[in-house]
Amino acid sequence: MFELSNMTWPEAEERFGKTNLAIVPIGATEQHGLHLGVGADWIQAWNIARMVGERTGALVLPVMPYGVSGHHKEFPGTITLTPETLQEVVYEIIESLDRYGIDRVVFMNGHGGNLGAITGAIKEARENMGTLCAVVQWWDILSSRSIYGHPAEEHAGYAETALTLASRPEAVRMDRAVLTPTRQVDDEIQLVRSGLGRFKDGLVRIPLSTVDVSETGSMTEAHPEDVPGTSDYSKITPEFAETLLEDVVAWMSDFVKGFESLSVPLNKPRGE
Amino acid sequence: MFELSNMTWPEAEERFGKTNLAIVPIGATEQHGLHLGVGADWIQAWNIARMVGERTGALVLPVMPYGVSGHHKEFPGTITLTPETLQEVVYEIIESLDRYGIDRVVFMNGHGGNLGAITGAIKEARENMGTLCAVVQWWDILSSRSIYGHPAEEHAGYAETALTLASRPEAVRMDRAVLTPTRQVDDEIQLVRSGLGRFKDGLVRIPLSTVDVSETGSMTEAHPEDVPGTSDYSKITPEFAETLLEDVVAWMSDFVKGFESLSVPLNKPRGE
Amino acid sequence: MFELSNMTWPEAEERFGKTNLAIVPIGATEQHGLHLGVGADWIQAWNIARMVGERTGALVLPVMPYGVSGHHKEFPGTITLTPETLQEVVYEIIESLDRYGIDRVVFMNGHGGNLGAITGAIKEARENMGTLCAVVQWWDILSSRSIYGHPAEEHAGYAETALTLASRPEAVRMDRAVLTPTRQVDDEIQLVRSGLGRFKDGLVRIPLSTVDVSETGSMTEAHPEDVPGTSDYSKITPEFAETLLEDVVAWMSDFVKGFESLSVPLNKPRGE
Amino acid sequence: MFELSNMTWPEAEERFGKTNLAIVPIGATEQHGLHLGVGADWIQAWNIARMVGERTGALVLPVMPYGVSGHHKEFPGTITLTPETLQEVVYEIIESLDRYGIDRVVFMNGHGGNLGAITGAIKEARENMGTLCAVVQWWDILSSRSIYGHPAEEHAGYAETALTLASRPEAVRMDRAVLTPTRQVDDEIQLVRSGLGRFKDGLVRIPLSTVDVSETGSMTEAHPEDVPGTSDYSKITPEFAETLLEDVVAWMSDFVKGFESLSVPLNKPRGE
Amino acid sequence: MFELSNMTWPEAEERFGKTNLAIVPIGATEQHGLHLGVGADWIQAWNIARMVGERTGALVLPVMPYGVSGHHKEFPGTITLTPETLQEVVYEIIESLDRYGIDRVVFMNGHGGNLGAITGAIKEARENMGTLCAVVQWWDILSSRSIYGHPAEEHAGYAETALTLASRPEAVRMDRAVLTPTRQVDDEIQLVRSGLGRFKDGLVRIPLSTVDVSETGSMTEAHPEDVPGTSDYSKITPEFAETLLEDVVAWMSDFVKGFESLSVPLNKPRGE
Amino acid sequence: MFELSNMTWPEAEERFGKTNLAIVPIGATEQHGLHLGVGADWIQAWNIARMVGERTGALVLPVMPYGVSGHHKEFPGTITLTPETLQEVVYEIIESLDRYGIDRVVFMNGHGGNLGAITGAIKEARENMGTLCAVVQWWDILSSRSIYGHPAEEHAGYAETALTLASRPEAVRMDRAVLTPTRQVDDEIQLVRSGLGRFKDGLVRIPLSTVDVSETGSMTEAHPEDVPGTSDYSKITPEFAETLLEDVVAWMSDFVKGFESLSVPLNKPRGE
Repeated sequence: MFELSNMTWPEAEERFGKTNLAIVPIGATEQHGLHLGVGADWIQAWNIARMVGERTGALVLPVMPYGVSGHHKEFPGTITLTPETLQEVVYEIIESLDRYGIDRVVFMNGHGGNLGAITGAIKEARENMGTLCAVVQWWDILSSRSIYGHPAEEHAGYAETALTLASRPEAVRMDRAVLTPTRQVDDEIQLVRSGLGRFKDGLVRIPLSTVDVSETGSMTEAHPEDVPGTSDYSKITPEFAETLLEDVVAWMSDFVKGFESLSVPLNKPRGE
Repeated sequence: MFELSNMTWPEAEERFGKTNLAIVPIGATEQHGLHLGVGADWIQAWNIARMVGERTGALVLPVMPYGVSGHHKEFPGTITLTPETLQEVVYEIIESLDRYGIDRVVFMNGHGGNLGAITGAIKEARENMGTLCAVVQWWDILSSRSIYGHPAEEHAGYAETALTLASRPEAVRMDRAVLTPTRQVDDEIQLVRSGLGRFKDGLVRIPLSTVDVSETGSMTEAHPEDVPGTSDYSKITPEFAETLLEDVVAWMSDFVKGFESLSVPLNKPRGE
Repeated sequence: MFELSNMTWPEAEERFGKTNLAIVPIGATEQHGLHLGVGADWIQAWNIARMVGERTGALVLPVMPYGVSGHHKEFPGTITLTPETLQEVVYEIIESLDRYGIDRVVFMNGHGGNLGAITGAIKEARENMGTLCAVVQWWDILSSRSIYGHPAEEHAGYAETALTLASRPEAVRMDRAVLTPTRQVDDEIQLVRSGLGRFKDGLVRIPLSTVDVSETGSMTEAHPEDVPGTSDYSKITPEFAETLLEDVVAWMSDFVKGFESLSVPLNKPRGE
Repeated sequence: MFELSNMTWPEAEERFGKTNLAIVPIGATEQHGLHLGVGADWIQAWNIARMVGERTGALVLPVMPYGVSGHHKEFPGTITLTPETLQEVVYEIIESLDRYGIDRVVFMNGHGGNLGAITGAIKEARENMGTLCAVVQWWDILSSRSIYGHPAEEHAGYAETALTLASRPEAVRMDRAVLTPTRQVDDEIQLVRSGLGRFKDGLVRIPLSTVDVSETGSMTEAHPEDVPGTSDYSKITPEFAETLLEDVVAWMSDFVKGFESLSVPLNKPRGE
Repeated sequence: MFELSNMTWPEAEERFGKTNLAIVPIGATEQHGLHLGVGADWIQAWNIARMVGERTGALVLPVMPYGVSGHHKEFPGTITLTPETLQEVVYEIIESLDRYGIDRVVFMNGHGGNLGAITGAIKEARENMGTLCAVVQWWDILSSRSIYGHPAEEHAGYAETALTLASRPEAVRMDRAVLTPTRQVDDEIQLVRSGLGRFKDGLVRIPLSTVDVSETGSMTEAHPEDVPGTSDYSKITPEFAETLLEDVVAWMSDFVKGFESLSVPLNKPRGE
Repeated sequence: MFELSNMTWPEAEERFGKTNLAIVPIGATEQHGLHLGVGADWIQAWNIARMVGERTGALVLPVMPYGVSGHHKEFPGTITLTPETLQEVVYEIIESLDRYGIDRVVFMNGHGGNLGAITGAIKEARENMGTLCAVVQWWDILSSRSIYGHPAEEHAGYAETALTLASRPEAVRMDRAVLTPTRQVDDEIQLVRSGLGRFKDGLVRIPLSTVDVSETGSMTEAHPEDVPGTSDYSKITPEFAETLLEDVVAWMSDFVKGFESLSVPLNKPRGE
């Protein structure tokens, strides 16, 4: 039994006596192009978290299915919280866990737009309660890999499509999947993605909305690297999807075990 | 297809063209006595909402699994938000839906402690956006019935046990279920439940914590009405559970259809 | 001497040495139909509190005359605070009293719309300061009675008219008093009052504005029970008014004495 | 009829058709030395406002009896709001009045500590709603006078004692009144009052608490000007009190009439 | 070395071991009539603070160049913070200093509109951290003087022009300087400045915008006192400017030394 | 003339008629190792912004010298704002500029810790006012380069030392500069910097404080790439510093010109 929701309070109490770590999956409900359901982010996060829980026995809290998705709101079906509100939710979850002795929390974050809010909350939590948190994101785990020539982090790209497919096939329409390169609006300032541009050899941060740079809502590169046979999503088969998911779950399972025993020397203020 | 999470944004867009109503299930993660999992409230709410969605075709959003549970926090496993934070979450969900033309929202609330926050948000939403919301709660639906001598609203009582059992049996330990009458602390001021007392023939509101009035976390009356054979939870069989759940789902399905077409004359300010 | 406002600080200091209880009356400034002054709620609360103070010697703070009345704002003369603001006011009053050793506070609330804000504040106060508060409302005290066939809680109904009449006759126009049944807007969803509806045998919460369901601002039932001779307010005589006020004051005086000595076992967190 | 509280909403509606001005009295509940009741500030403000209402027919709202009194909180019986909370209360009152066409509001402020919060609110109100507000304070009105050698603004000094005496004698203990010069704590920085110091020929603002500079809670100068026979409060007779109150009420009555017709050219942004 | 910004942290650490006082200059970026740069307030404050630092060795923090200037916003180039935001900035600066043992902070405030926010923050700081702060303003220092017949506090008047001229000549256009008396809008209520009026022999506070009462943005009196030869700014020579600045710096230098050793008895709550 | 602070409001008004772009430099006051002054971040930002202003004629606002530096607070001399407060400051600056027609704002950010707050504010500004903002950071500009084997972004590393040296030599102690590799606390989770770790071939975000991973406060790699002769800071000569600063200023000058004319198609909501 790893899911907190299924435990009675005496069972939870017993569990808190044996572990100091909990997993909190967080996702979003937002547009994911023409071919993924708007629940893609929370569906993946929830599935990954439960698989990790099953494998490691780590305590898994229910998924928070709403996140910070304001930049997608022009696309129907996007439900968005303000960063302030999500930050509060995250902080209060940590605060609740702290009451029962949990001082290591792993956030399995399925949506990049949540990162600022989660980071804000966990810094505050470390300061006020001493809790040490980590944020793991499947695209960070896959960041050193090329997925058939594409970077893992693409919105509704190859990797994300695979993970959703492996988690809940009924939220995927493979027949409508199309590669959608970021639309350019200027000769000199090249948009890399909705929040980042390149000017000459440097980077610049420009917060655009998805609708400014993509018509389908997906944000991929057509051929970021020249890999033969990837002009569409046909390489993203159920088998590939399973394997990718397994890689993510394996990494996370190992990390969770390592993080539980990570001991950071309590920082001591100088000058006091 | 009724679950928003499974729809792509063009599918969601099409749906918003045909309906102005959405269902938002909200629960909590909090202690439910010795025999129910701490996820009982969101598990029921999510299950009921999906059954209603399936039956009526109404659009169902993902469940919000965290609620306002501060009064239970002395019992391990309770994760609580402040009322302010839940109110923000609810408000921002309505605001997001409003962008796509949804102006009727039914909140299926699985936890009484959330009511203040939800009500606060929906009043503000009506004022600012004109959206008309309704809150339905299974104990309100069952309020005119006696459940083997017990009122439906009891925390971890007969009705709640039945609904959790019918929704997710692995979150129920029937062998540990015990009736726990509210503990009395005064001769004259009789505590009815954690927030309500009776003094002479009048009522008084006194906010206590659950731990003040119950050792198990359940709050039931031993024999509120004299019904033979109900000194324990043995009457709450899987069959009974199914029937009760069906009654709730049937009522809600009918209500959702009625509410979609409820037309309230827009209030006009006097004196302007 | 029972009114805090009349005491010098050394007199207040002496009093705080002898008692741990204070009474805080709270009302509202909002429309009360065609026949009651908009100050009805605070006028009653202030009058009742002073009568209880006189009778029991309990310390009485000045009345807070503004409350949460947004649902009445279409009717001229309604002054409304947001729930957040009233909650802050209440919390800070308790915090101030806590400095001088007061840990039992009785809120005499004259307006139902304030209940959420007061409850929010007193829960927080109990958590943070240990103060135990109670909210008493005259319609809760009279809830087991029928007032010539009408429930006590009706807005600008029989009971409220009587209490205002007994407190300040110049705020009452008996010649304009009319019974105003809640206006129905749907065949199936019957509105009970502005925030509550009945559908089949269950209840549903729908926050409407008063103006949606009443033209006069009063919300009464024409003949909720068949009591001969109550098609108008003629039964609400000054004598009846005095008697009803006396009943309320007597109950509250007894309660205040009982509450002062109520001892709740300090809740102890489990799992710590 | 001038008191809003006594009017029904149709009467209020009629009144709003004839005037665009309302009076809001605000006070405090805070220590006032050994001889004045802690309600002195709201008692005076309420009394003055009603007298002005009676004389001019101007609409008078109920008194807000709680204010910003944190600097007095070491003296028992002081009930204090934060400046943020009072500012909200004031803003929301103006907002409510704005709904019915009131765009001139006169705040009769009985406590200097409230000024920052009131000013904050009325600036915001002017910006957002166009309402023009004025704050009148009896010590500002009397600022050009010497009260038996004392400035009018002294806390619990001659003028304040007189106004309380004329408003509610039962809140005054003349036999305990003593002059209390501000206690000095430094040779060079002379404290003028709790928030202001003098250094050489310049002024400096240092926020101290009353308890830092006064033992009785009063803050007066022993002999700020040499007026024979004023070593105590014996000159503050009921007759003197009546006369002083009359002067204040007369000034305010005239001001209210003048302010109702004050027309300020709507400021027009430059550069647009 | 007096400027904190130039110190490494070990140098700062050493300094905190020797002093408990720091200086924080605060200004504004807002219109200053036809002849002064919009940075006038922060330029003066920064210059004065550095001169005081140089002379006394006191630690000087970087200048906060943005302040509360909403009442000037109709004039282009005015950058304004809300009072709430500036108050937070000030509070968090004090909080940061408190970590390193600084419990005396002198705010050199160059803009009167900031006073409410600074005062709010330093009261809260005193309460929560025990830090004792002072606010010094050059016009308070010069308040007992007449500057060629004008009061020092005039916005963009003689004194302010002189201090800007002495601090940064390139921010001054002496050839465009004109005296601009406050515009009157009523026969009876005489406006003294944008927030203050005179009615008969009393004062009244009316928050107007600068644009309501001045066309140039300056607010001076034509001939507040009859001093020959001051119909324009010709008396404000560079030499006069230097002398005035020197007077201010000398006063502040002496004050800083005095304030460092000011010992206030810790206020003790009564009644506890 | 490019500095807003030196312009009178009519000069500012004229300028706003010719440009729609402004530059806002933002820094921090925080520890920068053993050899840089705590003002390093704002000093660089301010210097760069003024050089860009001089070269391009773009309007430059005063530098905001305080930022989000909580993770450095154990090192004396660090003054930190909360992210919420800095976000408010930034938002209100944009709001002020919007009044005068500025709808392109370039934030020259000298401190990475500010990025979340600035990004939060500019997203909100784009949403509410349509203003398009960009954030440029010197380490983003230099991100494709190796600085004698080191990445540009190191805290108090080669690049930052050079820029501070070129901006204000008196804030640099070259004789105390030491390379300080990030301290490791775990065998498997390798800390890359205070907020980022590497586990196997993936990344994980763990918010630590600087003091957890560095004793000097600097965070550099000893030899991230093997470049001969860089075991200390001796390569960072004044000449190198000038050249690096020049590169940054040249890039920013070009970018500012390009950004002024960047036209983004106004995003249009779908489904409306």
